[in-house]
Amino acid sequence: MADSVLRIIPLGGAGEIGRNSTLVEYGDDILVIDAGLMFPRYDMLGVDIVIPDYSYLIERRGCVRGIVITHGHEDHTGGLPYLLRYAQAPIYATELTRGLIQVKLREHKLLDSAQLHTMTPSVPFQVGPFSLEPFRVCHSIPDGVGLGITTPAGLVVHSGDFKFDHHPVDGKVTDFGKLAELGGRRPLVLLSDSTNAEQNGATPSELTVGELFDEVCGTAAGRVIVATFASNISRIRQVIEAAGRCGRRVGIVGQSMISNVRMACALGYLSEPSAPFLSVDEIEHMPAEKVALVCTGSQGEPASALVRMVNGGYRQLSIQPGDTVIISASSIPGNEEAINQIVDDLFRRGADVYYDDLMKVHVSGHGSRDELKLMLDLIRPRYFVPIHGEYRHLVLHARLAQEAGIPAENTFVVESGQVLELDEQGGRLAGRVGHGYVYVDGLGIGNVGEVLLRDRYLLSQDGFLIATVLVDEHNGELLLGPYLASRGFVDSGEWDALMEKAKELLVDALRDERHSAAGAPAVIREVLSTFMYSQTKRRPMILPVVMKL
Amino acid sequence: MADSVLRIIPLGGAGEIGRNSTLVEYGDDILVIDAGLMFPRYDMLGVDIVIPDYSYLIERRGCVRGIVITHGHEDHTGGLPYLLRYAQAPIYATELTRGLIQVKLREHKLLDSAQLHTMTPSVPFQVGPFSLEPFRVCHSIPDGVGLGITTPAGLVVHSGDFKFDHHPVDGKVTDFGKLAELGGRRPLVLLSDSTNAEQNGATPSELTVGELFDEVCGTAAGRVIVATFASNISRIRQVIEAAGRCGRRVGIVGQSMISNVRMACALGYLSEPSAPFLSVDEIEHMPAEKVALVCTGSQGEPASALVRMVNGGYRQLSIQPGDTVIISASSIPGNEEAINQIVDDLFRRGADVYYDDLMKVHVSGHGSRDELKLMLDLIRPRYFVPIHGEYRHLVLHARLAQEAGIPAENTFVVESGQVLELDEQGGRLAGRVGHGYVYVDGLGIGNVGEVLLRDRYLLSQDGFLIATVLVDEHNGELLLGPYLASRGFVDSGEWDALMEKAKELLVDALRDERHSAAGAPAVIREVLSTFMYSQTKRRPMILPVVMKL
Repeated sequence: MADSVLRIIPLGGAGEIGRNSTLVEYGDDILVIDAGLMFPRYDMLGVDIVIPDYSYLIERRGCVRGIVITHGHEDHTGGLPYLLRYAQAPIYATELTRGLIQVKLREHKLLDSAQLHTMTPSVPFQVGPFSLEPFRVCHSIPDGVGLGITTPAGLVVHSGDFKFDHHPVDGKVTDFGKLAELGGRRPLVLLSDSTNAEQNGATPSELTVGELFDEVCGTAAGRVIVATFASNISRIRQVIEAAGRCGRRVGIVGQSMISNVRMACALGYLSEPSAPFLSVDEIEHMPAEKVALVCTGSQGEPASALVRMVNGGYRQLSIQPGDTVIISASSIPGNEEAINQIVDDLFRRGADVYYDDLMKVHVSGHGSRDELKLMLDLIRPRYFVPIHGEYRHLVLHARLAQEAGIPAENTFVVESGQVLELDEQGGRLAGRVGHGYVYVDGLGIGNVGEVLLRDRYLLSQDGFLIATVLVDEHNGELLLGPYLASRGFVDSGEWDALMEKAKELLVDALRDERHSAAGAPAVIREVLSTFMYSQTKRRPMILPVVMKL
Repeated sequence: MADSVLRIIPLGGAGEIGRNSTLVEYGDDILVIDAGLMFPRYDMLGVDIVIPDYSYLIERRGCVRGIVITHGHEDHTGGLPYLLRYAQAPIYATELTRGLIQVKLREHKLLDSAQLHTMTPSVPFQVGPFSLEPFRVCHSIPDGVGLGITTPAGLVVHSGDFKFDHHPVDGKVTDFGKLAELGGRRPLVLLSDSTNAEQNGATPSELTVGELFDEVCGTAAGRVIVATFASNISRIRQVIEAAGRCGRRVGIVGQSMISNVRMACALGYLSEPSAPFLSVDEIEHMPAEKVALVCTGSQGEPASALVRMVNGGYRQLSIQPGDTVIISASSIPGNEEAINQIVDDLFRRGADVYYDDLMKVHVSGHGSRDELKLMLDLIRPRYFVPIHGEYRHLVLHARLAQEAGIPAENTFVVESGQVLELDEQGGRLAGRVGHGYVYVDGLGIGNVGEVLLRDRYLLSQDGFLIATVLVDEHNGELLLGPYLASRGFVDSGEWDALMEKAKELLVDALRDERHSAAGAPAVIREVLSTFMYSQTKRRPMILPVVMKL
């Protein structure tokens, strides 16, 4: 019967960047794991953020029994405010993750209506027909979990974002015992993080970064400034600890960093150093060799603390010769040029700069191939579904699973919205639900279509040109105009001559065509595009406005 | 006396990407080394290419004695057609480099007027007061040279783009003997390639790539398809040789690749394999395991052969399951996302893909730190100037020179347009000549300013909105309109409702203000920006058109 079928549906998460969501569905019960967002790609012009298409969940909102969030990164939590508008369900998260979600929901004025529950690693709980067993995994943020999910069809294991760091900053290693125990229960399917499926060996421990921080804090003659993501609580902790060992006091710079540090201190995930954090005033007046700063800006974001410190946007803080700056984050694809530029500008300001191309000032939060293999060997599932990562990562991870002994017909590369059905008869892809990108631009959710993006692209290349005329509605005679204006097309110095000549051509052409006012827009478009291209080899968007009197 | 001063002026080359040009000036004589272009950065919207500001050379065009091109890459030759329009001078290049320049000048209809001279490694020649001794260096294109330049002030050594490959594809190693001989003559200054100053050790030999090609051609069950730059003659040769050893016939796909291969064959830099290159028809009908293809598309360029083979743009050729694709080039910053996308799409088509993140299918053409150090140790110059690379590379290279024993006060990080003076008294930075970016957009050279780029950026984010009205010029009464139109702002589905409401607001506002037709544009702008932002949180560019009757 159809109801004994388990359905696994990745939304956004499989094959596309960082908008991770996985649905586990049995009969009329749906469990949602994670609800991420992505930041727009270079060709998504003017778009603020991108979320998965939740239409399937919205249609079946009466069936959503719960939303479990594995950890507090944006690509796992950022879609929540949008999902919750349409599909209310209890949310389950560990303490730090819940803290980060609360900050986010408060911003969206959704905190009061949200049903938030704290889950605790190793403490099972029930969501509809699903028995959940969260287990601790290491990642680049504390308090991450993977999930054992007992369903009527069998045991599903979801890895979360994980690595097997043997020396994590908070000392809490991945729960190997639980993984082995789950593996002993003959799991039906493993869903496992594929982000680093290209990387051989194992991801280095966070310990290596801590050692480097110790060395730099101990030897730098001036201030040490570490830029990282505001959510990277572990990295922030490493700076605080290294600074403490070397007699430096710590300042936190950047609003989002300050909010997160405050929240993490309140929840006990960071201990404020013995001396309190430095205020901006204190930073200015401390001897440079006694100061360590943590700030945002690792991606070269224009509004970030680091970029403002370089460009003089902070009145009191600015980069000085003798500063040592560590950019402790990997580049998100698309940000490379902005990061290169900030590194160059830091060198221009006389700072010493440590960055990824130069030495290992950052380690990934995701396990490499040997770790992915170990996860497979521990869980030994019947079926395997690679999740989290781009398409190539999924393919490489599926091949690794095959090398690990899972038959090819039992490994499934499932793309966003594809439905994987698992039952006694085996596994199969069974159609696709609503999927793809939903653009959020200003107040609009999902109302930015391909036509709009194409227009924005054309405007970005050669700008636009408008020509306004007033014609007699009966005989098409030109009464006023043409009035021409442009933006983004040519510099003002050239515009006057082009405009004068274009006006003459338009007056001539409209005189020839005067029998029909209806034909005027096409005439204007034709005359202007031909003339402007011949003069400039540019193709501005042309908008004729024909008013009739 | 002032005339005994030697001036070194990098143009574009120092601290900015890939627009390499260095001026060596003594008295009224200028030697230009290289004339490159760069491809526009992500924020240079609508710009086709970027060249250095040649205004200093244009002012002093009567003093330009010659232009020496060290090798045939675009970032060393692409500015030539623009420079030659303003400053005619003899051009000196080795045979292959000259072939590539001829293709370029023919396209620009400048070949007939250009004075091209072939230079030969190890054969000295004179340009004005400068005695030039070109010497062979290895790079990722054959026929590259460095230069010994004897000036009245002393010996200048220019490294060209180089690495010390001990197993180059053409068997022609860097001329160590000449470097040692130049070093023995107590050079005044070394100008040396800094591109890989971040990389420790030595750059691997091209041999390692050849070995990988052999392995893939020998073991792949289907076609082997190698994507690289059209100018990478060495890499193309490696594919031809590996294919020949494994009994595969070779096809060349992509127009620029075909032109370059034809030219390189004619000049003897490539030998056509024993069986001629495959036509498209033949490729279709050969057994897959007997075919190797070389094509463009290593940067994911939309119009390239590889991308068209993936997207079905080539009628006869398309990627098939079983194809093995090697992307043999490093990513130019800014192209990462396009490359990732093509790799994903290749996997989706069922191809096996080898690319940089997965294994070493490409080696750099530039020497790493150990090679830079060896160059310094061989030349042992009095002064050192790092060239070619971004600012951070120059700083790291200058520090390396200091470790190699050159006093800090004798190493100069010189940015584009900065003038380095060298004489008996020492070296010093002495002002700056015209420098910076010159944008080429269509027919326009240098007429794309910051205002234009800013307008294009704004248009790319939220589009524009025009409002046209006809008013009585005496009392400002609204006679016709408002007529509203927009592009790139909101989707058409939403536009109608927004427009209706906006029209009402405009009619009301213009009625209040009717005493003054002159005030109408400001009223329109204010009403529309406030209303549209409140409704959409977007900020389209607003252009009021007020016609008066």
